[in-house]
Amino acid sequence: MQGIHLIADFYDCPADMPWLRRAADLQALCVTQVESAGLTPLSTNFHQFEPGGATGVVILAESHLAIHTWPEAGHVTLDVFVCNYTQDNSARAHDLYRALESAFAPQRKNLTVLERGHHER
Amino acid sequence: MQGIHLIADFYDCPADMPWLRRAADLQALCVTQVESAGLTPLSTNFHQFEPGGATGVVILAESHLAIHTWPEAGHVTLDVFVCNYTQDNSARAHDLYRALESAFAPQRKNLTVLERGHHER
Repeated sequence: MQGIHLIADFYDCPADMPWLRRAADLQALCVTQVESAGLTPLSTNFHQFEPGGATGVVILAESHLAIHTWPEAGHVTLDVFVCNYTQDNSARAHDLYRALESAFAPQRKNLTVLERGHHER
Repeated sequence: MQGIHLIADFYDCPADMPWLRRAADLQALCVTQVESAGLTPLSTNFHQFEPGGATGVVILAESHLAIHTWPEAGHVTLDVFVCNYTQDNSARAHDLYRALESAFAPQRKNLTVLERGHHER
C-alpha cells in the first residue's frame, strides 16, 4: 500500500496556544483540520497530561494523525500518514500538515517526508 | 523532547496470522508486546476493516505505537515512537519492534530509524 508520511518536529511554539496545553482543544483542532483537508476521521483518542501537554491520535480511513505536545518546551511532534488506497491522498496530507503547522506557529521545525510501501509487489 | 521513531513497512507477511486480519487479535498482540517491552500503555484504539485488515494505535506514556494491516497484500506498516522524557526508552522501542516483526514474520521489510527532537534548545 503506497502512501506518504509527513514527520515533523516543531520547536518554539507559542506556549499560550490552547491546543498545545489541553487535549480537548487539541482534539477539536485536529478533527476540524482533518475534515477541512478532505480526510476521513474514524475515531479519536486524546490523552491529557498534567500540568499541561497532550497526546492525540485520529485514526483515519486513510491511516492516522498523531500529535504529542510538550508546552513547557514549546515542542510538538506531528505525524500525518495517509495511504493511497482508493485515491491519491498526498495533497490532502500536505494540506493537513500545513494547517497544523500554521496553528502551532513554530519558530523552527524539522520535516521529513517519507514515501512508504514502494517495495510492494 | 528527544526520542526515537522506528518506521517499518513489512511485506509478504503470512496471511493466516490472525493479527493481520482481525483488530481484536491485533490489539491483544500489541498490548502484550508493549507491556513485555516495559512500555506503558495509556489507552488503545483499534478499528476493524472488512473483509479483513485493521488499524490500531496504542497511546503510550512514552508516545505511541501505530499499525495498519492489509492482509490481502500481506502488508503491514508499523510505527514505534518513544520519547526519552524520564529515561532512555530506545532499547524498549527496539525490543517492541523486534517482537512485532517476529509476530508478522515478513519476508521483506523496510526499516527507517529516525531520531527526533534533537534540535530542541
